[in-house]
Amino acid sequence: MEMQKRVWMFEEGNRDMRDLLGGKGANLAEMTNIGLAVPPGFTITTEVCNEFVRLGNQLPAGLTDEIHAALAKVEAKIGKKFGDPTNPLLVSVRSGAKFSMPGMMDTVLNLGLNDQTAEGLLALTHNERFVWDAYRRFIMMFGDVVMDVDKKSFEAIFGALKHKLGVKLDTEVDSAHLKTLCAQFKAHYRKRKGHAFPEDPLVQLQYSVEAVFRSWNNPRAITYRRTEKIPDDLGTAVNVQCMVFGNMGTDSGTGVAFTRNPANGEKGLYGEYLMNAQGEDVVAGVRTPVPISQLAKQDPTIYKQFEKACRILEDHYREMQDIEFTIERGRLFILQCRTGKRTGPAAVKIAVDMVKEKRITRAEALLRLPPEQLEQCLHPRLKVNGKPSVFVKGMNAGPGGAVGRIVLDSHTAARLGKGGRGEKIILVREETNPDDIDGMLAAQGVLTARGGRTSHAALVARQFGIPTICGAGDMHVDEEGRRVRSNGFQLKEGDWISLDGTAGVVYIGQMQTEPSAISDEFKTFMAWADAVRRLGVRANADTPEQAAQAVEFGAQGIGLCRTEHMFLEPSRLPIVRQMILAETDKIRQVALDKLEPMQRGDFYGIFKAMGGRPVTIRLIDPPLHEFLPRHDELLEAVTRLRLTNPGSSTLKRKEHLLSKVREMQEANPMLGLRGCRLSIVFPQIVQMQVGAIIGAACDCARDGIKTDVEIMIPLVGHVNELRVIKQKLDAVARESMKRAGRKVKYSFGTMIEVPRAALTADEIAQEASFFSFGTNDLTQMTYAISRDDAGKFIGKYVEDKIIPGDPTESIDRAGVGKLMDMCVKLGRGVSPKLKIGICGEHGGDPRSVKFCHSIGLDYVSCSPRRLPIARLAAAQAVLEESEAKDVRDK
Amino acid sequence: MEMQKRVWMFEEGNRDMRDLLGGKGANLAEMTNIGLAVPPGFTITTEVCNEFVRLGNQLPAGLTDEIHAALAKVEAKIGKKFGDPTNPLLVSVRSGAKFSMPGMMDTVLNLGLNDQTAEGLLALTHNERFVWDAYRRFIMMFGDVVMDVDKKSFEAIFGALKHKLGVKLDTEVDSAHLKTLCAQFKAHYRKRKGHAFPEDPLVQLQYSVEAVFRSWNNPRAITYRRTEKIPDDLGTAVNVQCMVFGNMGTDSGTGVAFTRNPANGEKGLYGEYLMNAQGEDVVAGVRTPVPISQLAKQDPTIYKQFEKACRILEDHYREMQDIEFTIERGRLFILQCRTGKRTGPAAVKIAVDMVKEKRITRAEALLRLPPEQLEQCLHPRLKVNGKPSVFVKGMNAGPGGAVGRIVLDSHTAARLGKGGRGEKIILVREETNPDDIDGMLAAQGVLTARGGRTSHAALVARQFGIPTICGAGDMHVDEEGRRVRSNGFQLKEGDWISLDGTAGVVYIGQMQTEPSAISDEFKTFMAWADAVRRLGVRANADTPEQAAQAVEFGAQGIGLCRTEHMFLEPSRLPIVRQMILAETDKIRQVALDKLEPMQRGDFYGIFKAMGGRPVTIRLIDPPLHEFLPRHDELLEAVTRLRLTNPGSSTLKRKEHLLSKVREMQEANPMLGLRGCRLSIVFPQIVQMQVGAIIGAACDCARDGIKTDVEIMIPLVGHVNELRVIKQKLDAVARESMKRAGRKVKYSFGTMIEVPRAALTADEIAQEASFFSFGTNDLTQMTYAISRDDAGKFIGKYVEDKIIPGDPTESIDRAGVGKLMDMCVKLGRGVSPKLKIGICGEHGGDPRSVKFCHSIGLDYVSCSPRRLPIARLAAAQAVLEESEAKDVRDK
Repeated sequence: MEMQKRVWMFEEGNRDMRDLLGGKGANLAEMTNIGLAVPPGFTITTEVCNEFVRLGNQLPAGLTDEIHAALAKVEAKIGKKFGDPTNPLLVSVRSGAKFSMPGMMDTVLNLGLNDQTAEGLLALTHNERFVWDAYRRFIMMFGDVVMDVDKKSFEAIFGALKHKLGVKLDTEVDSAHLKTLCAQFKAHYRKRKGHAFPEDPLVQLQYSVEAVFRSWNNPRAITYRRTEKIPDDLGTAVNVQCMVFGNMGTDSGTGVAFTRNPANGEKGLYGEYLMNAQGEDVVAGVRTPVPISQLAKQDPTIYKQFEKACRILEDHYREMQDIEFTIERGRLFILQCRTGKRTGPAAVKIAVDMVKEKRITRAEALLRLPPEQLEQCLHPRLKVNGKPSVFVKGMNAGPGGAVGRIVLDSHTAARLGKGGRGEKIILVREETNPDDIDGMLAAQGVLTARGGRTSHAALVARQFGIPTICGAGDMHVDEEGRRVRSNGFQLKEGDWISLDGTAGVVYIGQMQTEPSAISDEFKTFMAWADAVRRLGVRANADTPEQAAQAVEFGAQGIGLCRTEHMFLEPSRLPIVRQMILAETDKIRQVALDKLEPMQRGDFYGIFKAMGGRPVTIRLIDPPLHEFLPRHDELLEAVTRLRLTNPGSSTLKRKEHLLSKVREMQEANPMLGLRGCRLSIVFPQIVQMQVGAIIGAACDCARDGIKTDVEIMIPLVGHVNELRVIKQKLDAVARESMKRAGRKVKYSFGTMIEVPRAALTADEIAQEASFFSFGTNDLTQMTYAISRDDAGKFIGKYVEDKIIPGDPTESIDRAGVGKLMDMCVKLGRGVSPKLKIGICGEHGGDPRSVKFCHSIGLDYVSCSPRRLPIARLAAAQAVLEESEAKDVRDK
Repeated sequence: MEMQKRVWMFEEGNRDMRDLLGGKGANLAEMTNIGLAVPPGFTITTEVCNEFVRLGNQLPAGLTDEIHAALAKVEAKIGKKFGDPTNPLLVSVRSGAKFSMPGMMDTVLNLGLNDQTAEGLLALTHNERFVWDAYRRFIMMFGDVVMDVDKKSFEAIFGALKHKLGVKLDTEVDSAHLKTLCAQFKAHYRKRKGHAFPEDPLVQLQYSVEAVFRSWNNPRAITYRRTEKIPDDLGTAVNVQCMVFGNMGTDSGTGVAFTRNPANGEKGLYGEYLMNAQGEDVVAGVRTPVPISQLAKQDPTIYKQFEKACRILEDHYREMQDIEFTIERGRLFILQCRTGKRTGPAAVKIAVDMVKEKRITRAEALLRLPPEQLEQCLHPRLKVNGKPSVFVKGMNAGPGGAVGRIVLDSHTAARLGKGGRGEKIILVREETNPDDIDGMLAAQGVLTARGGRTSHAALVARQFGIPTICGAGDMHVDEEGRRVRSNGFQLKEGDWISLDGTAGVVYIGQMQTEPSAISDEFKTFMAWADAVRRLGVRANADTPEQAAQAVEFGAQGIGLCRTEHMFLEPSRLPIVRQMILAETDKIRQVALDKLEPMQRGDFYGIFKAMGGRPVTIRLIDPPLHEFLPRHDELLEAVTRLRLTNPGSSTLKRKEHLLSKVREMQEANPMLGLRGCRLSIVFPQIVQMQVGAIIGAACDCARDGIKTDVEIMIPLVGHVNELRVIKQKLDAVARESMKRAGRKVKYSFGTMIEVPRAALTADEIAQEASFFSFGTNDLTQMTYAISRDDAGKFIGKYVEDKIIPGDPTESIDRAGVGKLMDMCVKLGRGVSPKLKIGICGEHGGDPRSVKFCHSIGLDYVSCSPRRLPIARLAAAQAVLEESEAKDVRDK
């Protein structure tokens, strides 16, 4: 096998060389080559790693010479020399495989420091603190990641020192003591390793390169590759790069910026920086950074250079960039660039703008946007009436309106909010950190006193679309006293506030929200998606209101209207219970006769809202005991009454009810008396429902409203179930039309949710006008996973990578998907024009939508809020298909 | 279309002409042609039926002439004339389609009677009662089934007469009043129909033939054809046959006989008869019939004729026959013959004897026996020690030993016995009738005072294999006093008796039973089956005792050993609960350490019993809450204690337990935390189990006992579950062997019970050494039917023919079977030698066994008692396959 060049200068590679240079190396090369001021460096190839492994963890002969030659080129570029006490070059050493991969050695910074070069650096910078801090960090990092001297043992020494000095923070230790610490660290190293800390920078470098290569076969890395199916022979590259420092004085600095506003998408630099600081200082929030626009005044030359670099990067990547930079003694360096995270509305605006700017095509715009993000565009807005009291203003980090009660810690927020008790809350914190994530996700909105546009809270807001205001510095959070103060007001925990995340203003009190005013860019973008997609998109909607919203969000019909939700209204539940508990068919009919006009009214409203679009109505599905009082409560009440009031009529009544509830209890209700089985055992209920449906359609016909009714029989497992029920209900429908003296369009179809239905779809298709995959239940049965009970194991499954993801969230293609594919083929085999859709919650999941496209479904149906997601995913499915086709054609 | 001959004399047809003559007509023709004295008659073809329908319910032209010509031939044969008052011929008219089909017109008897022929018959028989009884029956039957005058209206008239006479039974009405009744019936007919009762026998016949043809399109018949998928254009034939009477005097008689003993299979006529009686009298048990052997003395000529007829029939059909005969004035007629029902042991003996007699081949013998019947051969026998007191002797109608307490009515029997409280009971009745079926099935055995070998009790005994003694005439049953008396003893309801159904003796007291001494014929028969079958047969066995029994009944291994049954022993349950309720892994381990030696001992015993045959052990499967106290009981106790003893430590303890039980409750336990999910969430349990299994195998190795261990991981849905668990448990197994210093043979495989496992069998096969279909759960999930809850609808489904049968009893080939077939193909596609079996209860169901053969499984596994059934079914599968192949080859 011919050996390629083993050490590549950044300027020699490009982004297509990930196989050889690893992901990080290829990107550093790319940036260097498009003319950015990237700190110089080089990459040792992945092939060397494989050679290293083959040689029994030995660097191949001659490699050191090549590394030294590359180092010499770096020295020439930067004007420093590796190991030179007068002007030392320091480098970082990083691993970098083709795919990002945990378990391997990460990073050694400041490599090249020793007692001599440290003194040299001191002479150059006159910054004792900087030098000794850098040195002690290097010794620890090198010891820990390269030489296996655990970090904790170093930290213990530092801790002892701080204890002795009576201080708490690292920053409180002065430079003299930091210098002492370096000596202590080196002594510790010698004690643990049996040899002195290597002072020779070339030795330091060699050890580090070897450590990176060795880490390729760390147990954790091996396990990771196994579960992710990454081949063992890819190898990792090693990146050696010149260090630059933003804390070398007032002519140094560091910052982060986006090329467009990540909150609303507006064009223009957006970010912040700090002079005489390191990146860590910005992230840690120890000092407050300054908006990037200030740099234009403070150092116009550097600003112009940076502006140009940003332009180059956006032009090159044709995408909004998130860029890290450092100024070292008046010289600008670009350290990293990546695609910038943004809110949904920003993503839409940027995509549409970039098409207008002719940077990208419409197809690229559509493909670029993660469909999930569109949900944020539908965020409600705060309705501002009159002159509400402003509590505080801050940075508009996450758009949208949010109203809720103040909660001051994340634990309480998680308990009370979404996923907990379901109360509306606003999480108010001094600033947030990763521990706050649960609380943030449970909140309607988030408000912090500190932290900028790149703070943790802002990042989370963007990612999850949570209305968020950051850095509201006027606000004082008194966590002990459970109070917040601002603008002369004092609010207690539990008080209502209203947050306008789009404007960055917080009001006192509980205001209203209104649906998002959909932007012109959003409309444009969705129109592009609609023009491309083949899949139809319908909504799951149970009420006239939901139906109206569905149409607004682009629904072409209703894919699932659940009739039983209509039974749960407080005014109807007693009648429904009467119906269920009836001892005779006659008594049952009395209750059903009361329910019929109510359901008829519901259907009328839905048909009207849908204006002639198809409406799929599912007949009653859940087990009837779901409508009855809870067994355990009854049992408790009865047991208590037997002791306290044994003769009472209440006891008698409750005992009777308890015995009825017991009779109806089931061991596995999901596999019990429900769905079409109810239609067979208690035919009166569905007869009432079909009477109401057809009656409502006839009422519509009378009033000049078009209808297209699809009646869906749930839980069919055997074709005869459908055949028998259809026969009976068809008679009811004909009778209803006769009574009304009208004819309306209707058809019967079935949900495919029982595995057997999918397996025998060729039989069932002979009786059905349409199929609709109920993938919630189909997944539960095919996978033997009850969603109600899965909490006890599914988390561990996903965490341990036993399964790639929760199959109730995204369709399990290998199992459930295979069954769906079979079903479509069998069904269309006997009925080529069979209409097939999906109405499980997967209908709003982008990956699942794409799968539905691939197996040839006619439509997906999802909750109204997820319609834009489904529309975009459907468009992407078409574009990805033709991309894949293009690749094949080449 | 060319019209064939439309009316066929019995002697012109044969048994292969079912299409044209219907099933009944073809059989009557066959019997006539092999020389039996069948009352003469003819068949009008099914083609005429279709023509009749085409003509708008009109008999085709010229048919009446052909019928008259056929009638003339019958008259000539029998020496009577239709409508001749001096010597009248009476006929029966019956429908008869290719397939037996409910919903159509059944039978009109005594057709040809009118006022003149009745008088003529009277002159011939001098039996007023016979004549007027026959006449009134004919008027009613003709009115009801031919002319649509409902039977109830006739019965009301008869009822009024009996009321007037102050009598209860039909037989108490004298002949004079029966004659009056005939006149009343005719008047009623005229009133309802508006015309006189047709006195012309030819008109009676024409109307009846038309009625049979019309009944082909009865709504009930149409519905039946639709559900059974019988084509509408088959048509029905009409059979017209000469009537013969066994009650024409002392030279007349009627009887039933088998060509071999249906209880034990011994060769020789076996049956009973009554002179001067009708078939109804025998069935109704009004008079007690006489053993057939008596006929040899009473009328040797007739007996010899009958004996010859029996021989001819058995020779012809090469099968034991059940024959109905009538003697009319010294002339023997064979009315019907059919394959005789028999007990399992009799079936085996007859089959083996017939092979020895060279009547049939071994293959025929194997194919002929319904596998289900073999279970009866394993019936336990009564162990007779010393000299127990004989209570009564009777007819040995159902072999086998049964011990239980006396119960005198079927309602109580059903409540206390099998399916009820599970107590051992013997149903003791004067005689049984169809209402007693539930009580009989709930009993260990049945004892009746009256009724012969063809009585209801004897029939049921044979069909269901219930040890039964009939016609124990010495016994007096005092139902009022709840006592039975015999042989000087008086027993109360609830007293123990022991019944030897093989010998026909009942003993007083509770004796022991012992396993059946398997007969030589049984061994021969099973050896033939084993020589033919390809499928292996294993047993489901959880204890050393069951394992030993399994080997005795022919098991070639254990296909399912359920480890959790070992947990349920009273001495172990508290430890199991400790293990489940443990708050920490450490506490859990303490309990597991106690359980380990116990399970190890169990496994040792099982391995020893199986002597090197493969043993498939399933790791813990059910949800852990199944081992905990019941939630409702705890809730009741806690609620009560809160009121009565609020401070008690018992309350605290129970409250804690309740909260733990609640935590573990599941909405759908079948789809919850169980099977391999337990192995992932609580790995310690299965680690203990594998330690015990391998430890026991090592102990066996030490003791020179061979083992072949197959460890089965249940509920796998995704290959990674198996991969991860196998990895961990393989380490445990290796560790156990290391500790014991031995090597044993073991492998890991999985149950296929989750539909997804079947769908992704190609992935799973890469990690599994074997598959075993768990069709109980696979059916429940594929069909969405929880067996625990199906009671509420599955009965109605089967009854209404929505599904062909309960899929939990026999594999649903179209759905579950399709999935199994897919699974086998996918699995063997990647692992051609993959061992595949089935261990669901379907493994003992003959139809399912045949299906398993057809899809290429390696073995079936079932409960020990069903092993012979599975062995025979497996042999039949091979034979039926080669039969089918023969047909194809032709």
